[in-house]
Amino acid sequence: MDTHIKNSTQPVKPYEENRARMLISCPDGPGLVAAVSQFLHEHGANIVQFDQYTMDPEGGMFFMRVEFDLDQLDDRLSNVRADFAAIADKFQMEWKLYPLKQKKKLAIFVSKEDHCLVELLWQWQAGDLDAEISMVISNHADMKEYVESFGIPYYHIPVTPDTKKEAEQKQLEIVADKVDLIVLARYMQIVSPALISPYRNRIINIHHSFLPAFVGGKPYAQAYERGVKIIGATAHYVTEELDGGPIIEQDVQRVSHRDNVNELKRIGRTIERVVLARAVKWHVEDRILVHQNKTVVFN
Amino acid sequence: MDTHIKNSTQPVKPYEENRARMLISCPDGPGLVAAVSQFLHEHGANIVQFDQYTMDPEGGMFFMRVEFDLDQLDDRLSNVRADFAAIADKFQMEWKLYPLKQKKKLAIFVSKEDHCLVELLWQWQAGDLDAEISMVISNHADMKEYVESFGIPYYHIPVTPDTKKEAEQKQLEIVADKVDLIVLARYMQIVSPALISPYRNRIINIHHSFLPAFVGGKPYAQAYERGVKIIGATAHYVTEELDGGPIIEQDVQRVSHRDNVNELKRIGRTIERVVLARAVKWHVEDRILVHQNKTVVFN
Amino acid sequence: MDTHIKNSTQPVKPYEENRARMLISCPDGPGLVAAVSQFLHEHGANIVQFDQYTMDPEGGMFFMRVEFDLDQLDDRLSNVRADFAAIADKFQMEWKLYPLKQKKKLAIFVSKEDHCLVELLWQWQAGDLDAEISMVISNHADMKEYVESFGIPYYHIPVTPDTKKEAEQKQLEIVADKVDLIVLARYMQIVSPALISPYRNRIINIHHSFLPAFVGGKPYAQAYERGVKIIGATAHYVTEELDGGPIIEQDVQRVSHRDNVNELKRIGRTIERVVLARAVKWHVEDRILVHQNKTVVFN
Amino acid sequence: MDTHIKNSTQPVKPYEENRARMLISCPDGPGLVAAVSQFLHEHGANIVQFDQYTMDPEGGMFFMRVEFDLDQLDDRLSNVRADFAAIADKFQMEWKLYPLKQKKKLAIFVSKEDHCLVELLWQWQAGDLDAEISMVISNHADMKEYVESFGIPYYHIPVTPDTKKEAEQKQLEIVADKVDLIVLARYMQIVSPALISPYRNRIINIHHSFLPAFVGGKPYAQAYERGVKIIGATAHYVTEELDGGPIIEQDVQRVSHRDNVNELKRIGRTIERVVLARAVKWHVEDRILVHQNKTVVFN
Repeated sequence: MDTHIKNSTQPVKPYEENRARMLISCPDGPGLVAAVSQFLHEHGANIVQFDQYTMDPEGGMFFMRVEFDLDQLDDRLSNVRADFAAIADKFQMEWKLYPLKQKKKLAIFVSKEDHCLVELLWQWQAGDLDAEISMVISNHADMKEYVESFGIPYYHIPVTPDTKKEAEQKQLEIVADKVDLIVLARYMQIVSPALISPYRNRIINIHHSFLPAFVGGKPYAQAYERGVKIIGATAHYVTEELDGGPIIEQDVQRVSHRDNVNELKRIGRTIERVVLARAVKWHVEDRILVHQNKTVVFN
Repeated sequence: MDTHIKNSTQPVKPYEENRARMLISCPDGPGLVAAVSQFLHEHGANIVQFDQYTMDPEGGMFFMRVEFDLDQLDDRLSNVRADFAAIADKFQMEWKLYPLKQKKKLAIFVSKEDHCLVELLWQWQAGDLDAEISMVISNHADMKEYVESFGIPYYHIPVTPDTKKEAEQKQLEIVADKVDLIVLARYMQIVSPALISPYRNRIINIHHSFLPAFVGGKPYAQAYERGVKIIGATAHYVTEELDGGPIIEQDVQRVSHRDNVNELKRIGRTIERVVLARAVKWHVEDRILVHQNKTVVFN
Repeated sequence: MDTHIKNSTQPVKPYEENRARMLISCPDGPGLVAAVSQFLHEHGANIVQFDQYTMDPEGGMFFMRVEFDLDQLDDRLSNVRADFAAIADKFQMEWKLYPLKQKKKLAIFVSKEDHCLVELLWQWQAGDLDAEISMVISNHADMKEYVESFGIPYYHIPVTPDTKKEAEQKQLEIVADKVDLIVLARYMQIVSPALISPYRNRIINIHHSFLPAFVGGKPYAQAYERGVKIIGATAHYVTEELDGGPIIEQDVQRVSHRDNVNELKRIGRTIERVVLARAVKWHVEDRILVHQNKTVVFN
Repeated sequence: MDTHIKNSTQPVKPYEENRARMLISCPDGPGLVAAVSQFLHEHGANIVQFDQYTMDPEGGMFFMRVEFDLDQLDDRLSNVRADFAAIADKFQMEWKLYPLKQKKKLAIFVSKEDHCLVELLWQWQAGDLDAEISMVISNHADMKEYVESFGIPYYHIPVTPDTKKEAEQKQLEIVADKVDLIVLARYMQIVSPALISPYRNRIINIHHSFLPAFVGGKPYAQAYERGVKIIGATAHYVTEELDGGPIIEQDVQRVSHRDNVNELKRIGRTIERVVLARAVKWHVEDRILVHQNKTVVFN
């Protein structure tokens, strides 16, 4: 880990130059796959990856992710968007189209526990997390020097019961229009609706239990108390309901009666960082569609 | 699977002839391991397997499982028991001593879903479940012929809201003094306190979720609704609290948005039967100690 | 498990009536997804599931699986096939088209160990294996009565070094033109090239190790000797190279120094039957494409 | 991760002050558990954890790990050692006795890939790896600044075909008498017998495959070529046979046809670092006994 990298953006790889991704949700109906693939073909695009899922063949929802190459993408993107609007309209699609060159911008929120932050920074530096880490925001000063050594701005915004509202306002100002995704990397404060609302399905939290078991505080103590034989962690989008948002990814590990709460925490740290990193990776690669309170993940 | 076996007991293997197991729980204190191992050595026993666990070195509980060989075990067992009483007394031990020849007797309760029953019968017939299956009790008649083809008695005791009490009374009479362990192999009736009380920590249930998530009915529908990415099953001892007893074993499998409720059930069936079979195996091999609402499993 | 079912075919479910699946392999090129989806749309078919994979965007192979509904499928299938030939020709496609009503016919080969056979029969009877089990062939007579109780023909063809060639000839005659897939469910004889050749990529074997570790005989003894901490099983298509064919599925379980060879075998039996059943399920659902010595599995 | 820690030793926790561990291997025989536990009891020691394993009750090997508290351990340790010699002699024991305060000293060897080193340093800094990291040795200079920021000496010893012998001599001089364990954290040079011999069962390597599959170079390319559905990593003690030493720990993760060699490497990096860290943790906690080419791990 070379702590001297001063540029927080991933370099653009050659194959990314002319590649884009579309995410589509709409009511299912005949001709959807044909319409989209025909459209892309007529515009000279070559499909590289195509994923589709229909929730229920009889009147359910249709979800699609398509990755394609198009020569001179930069010049033609606005035309493609304009032309696609007609199809989108016809099928009542919600849709997004991102060129791969346009990396997602991340704000990572962290408190005192560093393992999830360290993992994200390591994966990002190893080139495994294809995003720009624009900033780290913390209610503590502990990681300041470490984060800044990567050339990433660090905002220390203390939160106390008295200053909570003000602190949230400050957070909101700092991230506004600057980041595409907020990652709560063991950020031990409940985020306010004022932050959730503009970042609907764009705030990922890691909860240190296998949800919906052990909602709320001290999940490892709850797990120890209940005597479970497997513990887990859950990455989910944040909604107004505590630990109740759409689940993106979960993983688990076997434990035994020998593991006390501290051991559970130690084992859990590795699950947490791996699960959170996967969820963030999938989000920045546009692999996740949200429908009601569930995710469709094309991975 | 030879359905013509007419003898529900496992044969005694040569090494089992003179082998016995002790299970001990007591407050921790100095000299426990020395006292037990010295006792066994002085009585000519050779320790084959020794497991120990101290919940908390400062004033916690001490759990021990020891497997030993003793020549002419049959003749000497009552003496060993009598002599050990003094040590047990000194250390305030709860203890049990079983010769391996004395196979545990099982009653399996089942409703309409057959996968857990089939698994137990298959493992038992393959020689992997070292027990005697004394009877199968069901509120339906469906499996009668299949179970009887193994030479195992099948009791069909219908349960309706009106006859529930009477049915439970009949179950109790049938199992009383005849079985050591009751296995609820997807038995879809809540068992009454009248049955739980005499079989405290001797009724194993398989719950088709990763407890404590999705307590109660229709756990796969609950899991689908919540959009979890991993499903599981839990084997636990039955207590008066629904799905709240000491957990013996759990296992899980990854699922995705593509899996509807029926797929979850299909995937879950394999988890359920494997988890239940493991728990039953550990119980009949005297590998489980229960303390408060948790299990110590020496496996 | 009702041993009185005398009909070895799964019933056709309503949604299967007009549903079909296509499997396509061809060199990658522009317009493939569009061509196929447009074709289906123009013929009035509605795509239910669409999977695609391109091995290497630059000049690699393209694989596609599409599941679609088409009204009056029976009447229109031959037309669809005839019309699709032009597209297939243009893109140099290898392709198959199966109506779901046309269940794959299976011959299961077994020796003395019954666990894989029992699993397949149980999953088939539970409705989880959507195929017809046309026959069981064995070099032993042990399972005859059990298999016949399901209404499935059982052919006992003993194999000795002297009669091997003759026995293989007999097997070939029995299966010829009657089965679509041969499943070696712990069949402990090496099958001859004479059988492999007409059933290229249509013979599935379960090898009781995590291939390519422990090729050949006695893999659990080899695993014990090497002291591995995880054991596994591998389902693969049979080729002329022993245990060298395309891998379909693998799974593993953790073991420890406490597990001797017999314990490894016991643990392994559950891995073997689960892995084999998954591979067979995917094959009969047309989810597997083979390219060179590797599989693409759309599951 | 506070890069300003300048002291590479873990602090001694209060409970460690008077705690010690014994590791014993010997031919099995009657009275072993009694002799050791009686000895400890008579010397005033209180057993905290006791693990035992007999490879084969009939004439096999016996392995034991015991953790105990003894007041004024420092003053009495040499007496305990002297007194135990008689028992050890009687039972032909190989044995070791370590006070917990005496942390194992580690040398970590690394080349260019940093993930295993970063993991070990992170776990060590989080207090999860109870050892002293005495030095890092590398054939490259890349990590120098990063490692030194932890206060750990970094020795850059380039290795070329011409200077290999000289480089190994230098490594040997640097580690000699200063470290208890050498960890090859993706060190991409084959270590010489001259280093292996004095560090028999004290050099841990991480091999990036599920051994014995894919011995030697480029295991991920081999895995891709073979089309396996699960990849793994293996931590083992280094012997003169390449990738052939006693296996300590393995773990795996599911992959699919979609994962090319680079994806396998990416997924593998997380398995590698987790598996290596577990093996190192168990070694420094004296949980591993080696017999012939296999390990007994009391974890």
